[in-house]
Amino acid sequence: MKLTILGSSSALPTSARNPSAHVLNAHERLYLIDCGEGTQMQMRKCRIKISKINHIFISHLHGDHVFGLYGLISSLNLMGRNNPLYLYAPENFGNILKSHLNDFDIKPCFEIVFTGLKVKKPEVILDDRHIFVMAFPLKHRVESYGFIFREKEGDRKIIKEMIAIHNIPVSQMQRIKKGADLIKENGTIIKNEEITIPPPKPLSYAYCSDTSFFGRLPIFVKNVDLIYHEATFHSSLEDMARITGHSTAADAARVASKAGAGKLLIGHFSARYKDINPLLEEARAIFPETYAAEECKTYIISHNSSV
Amino acid sequence: MKLTILGSSSALPTSARNPSAHVLNAHERLYLIDCGEGTQMQMRKCRIKISKINHIFISHLHGDHVFGLYGLISSLNLMGRNNPLYLYAPENFGNILKSHLNDFDIKPCFEIVFTGLKVKKPEVILDDRHIFVMAFPLKHRVESYGFIFREKEGDRKIIKEMIAIHNIPVSQMQRIKKGADLIKENGTIIKNEEITIPPPKPLSYAYCSDTSFFGRLPIFVKNVDLIYHEATFHSSLEDMARITGHSTAADAARVASKAGAGKLLIGHFSARYKDINPLLEEARAIFPETYAAEECKTYIISHNSSV
Repeated sequence: MKLTILGSSSALPTSARNPSAHVLNAHERLYLIDCGEGTQMQMRKCRIKISKINHIFISHLHGDHVFGLYGLISSLNLMGRNNPLYLYAPENFGNILKSHLNDFDIKPCFEIVFTGLKVKKPEVILDDRHIFVMAFPLKHRVESYGFIFREKEGDRKIIKEMIAIHNIPVSQMQRIKKGADLIKENGTIIKNEEITIPPPKPLSYAYCSDTSFFGRLPIFVKNVDLIYHEATFHSSLEDMARITGHSTAADAARVASKAGAGKLLIGHFSARYKDINPLLEEARAIFPETYAAEECKTYIISHNSSV
Repeated sequence: MKLTILGSSSALPTSARNPSAHVLNAHERLYLIDCGEGTQMQMRKCRIKISKINHIFISHLHGDHVFGLYGLISSLNLMGRNNPLYLYAPENFGNILKSHLNDFDIKPCFEIVFTGLKVKKPEVILDDRHIFVMAFPLKHRVESYGFIFREKEGDRKIIKEMIAIHNIPVSQMQRIKKGADLIKENGTIIKNEEITIPPPKPLSYAYCSDTSFFGRLPIFVKNVDLIYHEATFHSSLEDMARITGHSTAADAARVASKAGAGKLLIGHFSARYKDINPLLEEARAIFPETYAAEECKTYIISHNSSV
């Protein structure tokens, strides 16, 4: 899995940072997470084909997380898309989108399959070929959701040498990969563990969109390999973070630390910070494996590689 | 007057071109003309303060001319704007905007003064301090308008030497600048023409948004100093231009030529043209003073200077 940051500003974009949008590539399927204004242009800039997006997840209905969707849908329509587009967003966005398409007389030539989000605790919202996607509630001024993308457990791998040693027939290979023992022609049973190695541990990624810190959040994202967490403010503006329903860099680091996460990527920086190093330092003091989001940069998600 | 191009793509943006948006600076007042997705980011990139925009003109309700407005209004709101924002757009956008603000629970801290456009021939829609703005109908798939920005006639200028020669009193200067004769203390009348020079000829700029060619268009924009005209297609795709309600580069040049314009700036290029030189050459064969729009470039509008 790899994550490309398209936008890392908070509500006010700057000349250097765009509103929130992220593309997760899991087994060459692309998942768009939030869609701030300019997402389609950022995708082109980062050389990601907009036609390859099949699933879009909108965390909440603030403009900096969703206003790029209208242009993206228009462009997909102009490009003559055929495949359905699966859209996950807070429930009432379904009607908002319908009105919008009606107002601008847009009749998409592809189906938009809308799923309204309404969860109180982490729930699976998509069971795709290689991954599960779960939504979980955040704590913001409006209904807001985070998302966890978790790889499915892969097949066990048959040890090459064992194929020759035991003369494993092709007909049994699928079963063995799923964990079954080998049954030889003479009836001998060879334990699965002797002829296979376990699949790589599934990877996981959590996206924590706009939120204040709250106690259950680290539990929701327990043990994920990479967390993206908003860090709108430095802790010197902690009061402002509380009032606006946002997090400080220290809050983000606290979540990652308590969750036992592998790495932390912070973003959604307030436009007031020309230099985000103080936020990075603040987070690293609590959770050393913290990195500051850079736009158009792709982060490989793995169990132990550096971000 | 000077014009900055923020966006010069047609409906599909490219990695090099953004959707339509232009800022006209007339006597240090900024007029935003169309507002495609990403306009606020382009303004920041081109170092134009979004807070300085007081008037916005939307030519028609296709997304590539208007989807940047939602983010711009959000940002102005976050910045605590006080001044009213004057918005001119096709009539039914008034209700669309109201629904949008309601859907996203945006209560702007400034007044949006909306003027619905509905004109069959050129009509003044704004009488500002230094300029008039006129709207005129275009011919597109949906109701579409062009705009002319015309400087008001300035005051006549009193010839410096004449002030001393005739001992012109300060009390008469304003009247004389407006064209009145000088009445000396002894009753002698000095003709205005002898002591003043006429003001510089007012400048004018016409924005021709999405449109097919039609016979009255050059009459609508007669004698303007600079025309921006869409040139979505090369004339090798003339049929497509007709079907989609757009112009070829040759159409744009024909308008400028028949109108007796000073210069022509073409833009709104289809994403299919990586190299727009063939469009430029086609237009120049008909109207030599044609230039191809470049983003973040500022064009000085004058009677005879080069664009």
